[in-house]
Amino acid sequence: MREILLCEPNISEGRNLDLVEQVANQVRSVPGVKLLDYSSDPDHNRSVFTYLGAAEDVLEATQRLAVKTFELIDMSVQQGSHPRQGALDVAPFIPVRGIDSAAAVAIARRLGQFVGGLGVPVYYYEEAATRPERKSLPDIRKGEYEALPVKLADPAWAPDEGQAVFNPRSGVMVTGVRFPLVAFNINLHTTEVEIAEKIAKAVRHISGGYRFVRAIGLPLPDKGMVQVSMNLLNYTKTPISRVLETVRSEAACYGVAIAGTELVGPVPLGALEQVVKFYLQVHDFSLEQVIEVALLD
Amino acid sequence: MREILLCEPNISEGRNLDLVEQVANQVRSVPGVKLLDYSSDPDHNRSVFTYLGAAEDVLEATQRLAVKTFELIDMSVQQGSHPRQGALDVAPFIPVRGIDSAAAVAIARRLGQFVGGLGVPVYYYEEAATRPERKSLPDIRKGEYEALPVKLADPAWAPDEGQAVFNPRSGVMVTGVRFPLVAFNINLHTTEVEIAEKIAKAVRHISGGYRFVRAIGLPLPDKGMVQVSMNLLNYTKTPISRVLETVRSEAACYGVAIAGTELVGPVPLGALEQVVKFYLQVHDFSLEQVIEVALLD
Repeated sequence: MREILLCEPNISEGRNLDLVEQVANQVRSVPGVKLLDYSSDPDHNRSVFTYLGAAEDVLEATQRLAVKTFELIDMSVQQGSHPRQGALDVAPFIPVRGIDSAAAVAIARRLGQFVGGLGVPVYYYEEAATRPERKSLPDIRKGEYEALPVKLADPAWAPDEGQAVFNPRSGVMVTGVRFPLVAFNINLHTTEVEIAEKIAKAVRHISGGYRFVRAIGLPLPDKGMVQVSMNLLNYTKTPISRVLETVRSEAACYGVAIAGTELVGPVPLGALEQVVKFYLQVHDFSLEQVIEVALLD
Repeated sequence: MREILLCEPNISEGRNLDLVEQVANQVRSVPGVKLLDYSSDPDHNRSVFTYLGAAEDVLEATQRLAVKTFELIDMSVQQGSHPRQGALDVAPFIPVRGIDSAAAVAIARRLGQFVGGLGVPVYYYEEAATRPERKSLPDIRKGEYEALPVKLADPAWAPDEGQAVFNPRSGVMVTGVRFPLVAFNINLHTTEVEIAEKIAKAVRHISGGYRFVRAIGLPLPDKGMVQVSMNLLNYTKTPISRVLETVRSEAACYGVAIAGTELVGPVPLGALEQVVKFYLQVHDFSLEQVIEVALLD
């Protein structure tokens, strides 16, 4: 199957929908790139675009989006409730299929060099981070746009690309690579939220569980159930089936059964392939056998 | 997701690969139709083409394939070990996604009318059959090409399209609609083939099992295992998970575990969707959530 890279840039404008449309048109202008979705939040004053395609095409679309965003958004007058540091605040690349993390990082670096060349300082984060303290976006964004004049003068925050010079109009851009996240919730046939909380603790990384699981326990009063609500940060290393079976056995210890589960939002086909392989025990199965997948070649 | 109709015509030529290539080029000549595969068997003297796309495009490709096949193949001199009745022996349509059986039957009927108009008598089979005795291809093909002069004179075998006149050059064509078949094998940790045979009997339709399962038990001497080898004829009505769980419980009765399974050849995405929904208990999941599937729109 052909290579699929996804990009999900966030720009610091969510009120002027004409402006947002002009930015969207930059993405649409690249043949082979599919704009799956874009949405704006006026309170946050922020818009998110989701598009995908072959890596080179997605890079081209993101460069065009960057140029238009820097042309139209002036951070010196921007206000909104969402933390932000730049006109093109963050541009994460997400390798979906046929492209590994290293190749996606190379694309993020090329975007960084391009944007640095436009006079906008750039920080790399997540898989593209150059230092441990730049791995997390909230860490990089501390102090927001308003802190940039001081921050850029600090050698510890020298940008990864571009000059260490404050650009009042555009701020800075953060780019990098992250893995596709799977939002997975498990509903339990009990009203005791303590049970969901105990199971969340059992599976989540922070309290001794699986490396790539974030989890909390929640009540679902309308359903008379409780929920273990999870984000799986790397479905190849902590697969859906393993998490489900662990939740099942932990719940059984309280005599509680699983009522159902929810996969929320986008799911990569590879995550479902793992589920099929595990439960069918079909060790040699390949997605290339799927009739519809042949259309993606 | 967009409509996907698959067509798998069989032509009565598997030795003259230049001829087969000319027929393949007719399929390739229709924009939007993807020729997934074609293969020729010289002993059978037969070739099979597999292509898919939107229904109208697949119909157009099949009409072009029919015209070229009738132009190039002369049944009055054709010989081969595979049962056959015509130059374009059979053209089954298989609804993969976004098109129901009735709409696929309408396409098969339009192909039938087109081919009938070319002077080639047509029989409809499977979902498109006009009489119960024309449901199965082997029933329609009884006596093969050589029986056609007598058969076409018999009112019981009046063609569904075209005139009841023997066409020595092209024979007859059979077309219709069948469901995508899933070839599913389950390997068991035992060398006793009797156990595989008993389980095959338990799940297959003919001996009291599931309506849409054909199954046999086989030894796998190289692996020191046995296999329940199955065709699932309608995965929506007899789903993979139900068959697997039945085989598992039947095998457990002999103290035998499942070593692994095999999905052989093409699998429709809908069959995997059912597996994911069943084992994850994810009742509201939709394939539209799959990132790659968005590319098929």
